[in-house]
Amino acid sequence: MALIVRKYGGSSVASLDHIRRVAWALASAKEEGDRFVVVVSAMGGETDRLLKMSEEITPQPSSREQDALLATGEQACSALLAITLESLGHRAQSYTGMQLPMITDGIHSKARIIDLKTDVLTRALDEGIIPIVAGFQGVSENGSITTLGRGGSDTTAVALAAALKADCCEIHTDVDGVYTADPSICPRARHIVRISYPEMLELASLGAKVMHVRSIELAQKYQVCLIVKSSFHNDRQTWIVNEEEIMENSIIKGVTLEKNVSKISLIRIPDRPGIAYQIMQPLAEAAINVDMIIQNVSIDGYTDLTFTIPTTDLGKASALVNEVAKKIGALEVRADNNIVKVSAVGIGIKTNPGVAAKMFKSLSAEQINIEMISTSEYRISCVIEEKYGELGVRAVHKAFGLDREDSTETIQ
Amino acid sequence: MALIVRKYGGSSVASLDHIRRVAWALASAKEEGDRFVVVVSAMGGETDRLLKMSEEITPQPSSREQDALLATGEQACSALLAITLESLGHRAQSYTGMQLPMITDGIHSKARIIDLKTDVLTRALDEGIIPIVAGFQGVSENGSITTLGRGGSDTTAVALAAALKADCCEIHTDVDGVYTADPSICPRARHIVRISYPEMLELASLGAKVMHVRSIELAQKYQVCLIVKSSFHNDRQTWIVNEEEIMENSIIKGVTLEKNVSKISLIRIPDRPGIAYQIMQPLAEAAINVDMIIQNVSIDGYTDLTFTIPTTDLGKASALVNEVAKKIGALEVRADNNIVKVSAVGIGIKTNPGVAAKMFKSLSAEQINIEMISTSEYRISCVIEEKYGELGVRAVHKAFGLDREDSTETIQ
Repeated sequence: MALIVRKYGGSSVASLDHIRRVAWALASAKEEGDRFVVVVSAMGGETDRLLKMSEEITPQPSSREQDALLATGEQACSALLAITLESLGHRAQSYTGMQLPMITDGIHSKARIIDLKTDVLTRALDEGIIPIVAGFQGVSENGSITTLGRGGSDTTAVALAAALKADCCEIHTDVDGVYTADPSICPRARHIVRISYPEMLELASLGAKVMHVRSIELAQKYQVCLIVKSSFHNDRQTWIVNEEEIMENSIIKGVTLEKNVSKISLIRIPDRPGIAYQIMQPLAEAAINVDMIIQNVSIDGYTDLTFTIPTTDLGKASALVNEVAKKIGALEVRADNNIVKVSAVGIGIKTNPGVAAKMFKSLSAEQINIEMISTSEYRISCVIEEKYGELGVRAVHKAFGLDREDSTETIQ
Repeated sequence: MALIVRKYGGSSVASLDHIRRVAWALASAKEEGDRFVVVVSAMGGETDRLLKMSEEITPQPSSREQDALLATGEQACSALLAITLESLGHRAQSYTGMQLPMITDGIHSKARIIDLKTDVLTRALDEGIIPIVAGFQGVSENGSITTLGRGGSDTTAVALAAALKADCCEIHTDVDGVYTADPSICPRARHIVRISYPEMLELASLGAKVMHVRSIELAQKYQVCLIVKSSFHNDRQTWIVNEEEIMENSIIKGVTLEKNVSKISLIRIPDRPGIAYQIMQPLAEAAINVDMIIQNVSIDGYTDLTFTIPTTDLGKASALVNEVAKKIGALEVRADNNIVKVSAVGIGIKTNPGVAAKMFKSLSAEQINIEMISTSEYRISCVIEEKYGELGVRAVHKAFGLDREDSTETIQ
């Protein structure tokens, strides 16, 4: 008998009605003889409600306490789902991260799992009880409640699937799988039936909101079979598998648009050794993730340096950079948040040297200026002006032959 | 240096503004050198919000899961208070019942404390951290979250004070102590400075909402010094102490009105041995608390039996009693929820035989008919028609000389 971990995201449990529908789905799966462990997020909107409260108290809440606060969202939701299942005549029990326990390191708000006990879950399964695990949370070795970061319930689910040696981990969400682009931007986006772990990882890192990045890393590491599907419709789904399991590979699997991008430029800085380090070090210390960096050719011993960061860190980064700029004698610091990043993702990129050129051509054909470029094994990213973002996605999507012809087409 | 447990009820932490005021009070106490452990209830209204959700799912939610759901209220509140204290520059940490741990039996929704570890609290105190404990909750020996019943945060506080051998347990609430009667019913009620444990226990059992009944039992058992005071005003307070510590004892300490009372009468039942047992046994099995019982003098081998129960159990009790009535051949079953119970409480009762007569006289002087009477060492209770309840309280209050002359008078 197969053992499956089924994870339901916030939009799938957004109201008591939603929770009831999830319970019905679980009850009928149970009656068909499935064995499963359920992982839930907080009810849609609940985490934001709690965050708003702590932000109302102080812009920089104690991270230990914020974790204790946020963890209540998943705990309440897991209890509500268990209550609903029991009211339908099924035995169900909720578990917090501490009750399992899921041991993490002590880095609050982005804890990493160290150890995960599944004894209480296997015992529950043996007794015919449906275990409902509160996602997103764990407990540090010194007994504090920790959380895994926004979207962390995916990681809880994959970690449980790995620890339980489950046959599969299903991510139930409000879409029926992964698409070649966001269908609201690109109406001709196609549904993807199979995608490799590294491709999915790039898509998630680049702003496709389907899954938590860390959960995909973990799934690849422990070879957990992952399926993304709709909570309430059974028609289509996306399998996330090993590269080898994908027979016919298209060069590009998907196109993403990342909006949380800003750039900072330092104009006319002295071009001497260690200058980049001096600029980047304070940002690293502040845990600000610098993505692309461009340094111009040096003229008369001076150069310009431009780099991108998440817009959410722009205020903090500007303050730090302005300080350094004074110290090193830069002429000027410019910040710009009117940019976006368009990326093409696919395992075909590393073996197809013409891909980058094709992407640049498709953008320039639309008169879109490329401000910055970066490439990696599985992706090519171009920073362009914000207003061209959606047009850029459609242009690249079309150029790589991803546009579908009719409404039901999917790519393998 | 004194160690104090300070408990704040739901009305004291009803909003972020309230929490901020509590934090200020704690911060200034800390700066004056006090050492204390804080216990909080859920934010006012939060427990009802959570209860409403589970009741919307099913009228009889799984008690294990309801406990897991309700416990989030106190957890969130303790984290919010810790965040606020840290934002004021004080070190603070929240603890759930499971983090201490506070071990209870497994009777969900009315669990009793079995064991209470205070190591994490004393360690925190030694490090200068203010510990904020989520009240109302514990964990059973098999790892399930349990709750102690409505008002259970008082019991958490007293149990902590006992385990920590604290010098005192302060119950901070929205009134400045205990009164001789509910001031909204009896405008001439006086503030009480000192009251004995058994008197306070009777007052709480009889519907005075100031404290959780179990917490007073526990305080008496472990000789915890208890103080009831206002969260935000420092003018007056009530000490709950041993009988011996009260110098001048008034015969009657207070008068209460209990509205959650109904009566059930079985008319013309055969008067044979074991009949009362047959009627009461099903109620006991359903955990319905039968308070007063009156059996009429037998006539022709038949008698009537009347007893009172909480109105909240009336539906369940009526169903059970009607079943028994058929079996034993009773003529009729009557249920009445238009009654209330007026009680006089005081340790003087047991040594003053004229007290009962004085109470009956004061009620009859107002033309109030007494339907049932019960007495114990520390109280006399009369069941009367609901509409006379408040008048009855004022009459008894006046008869025992409790009415105050001016606005600030208190009784010792």
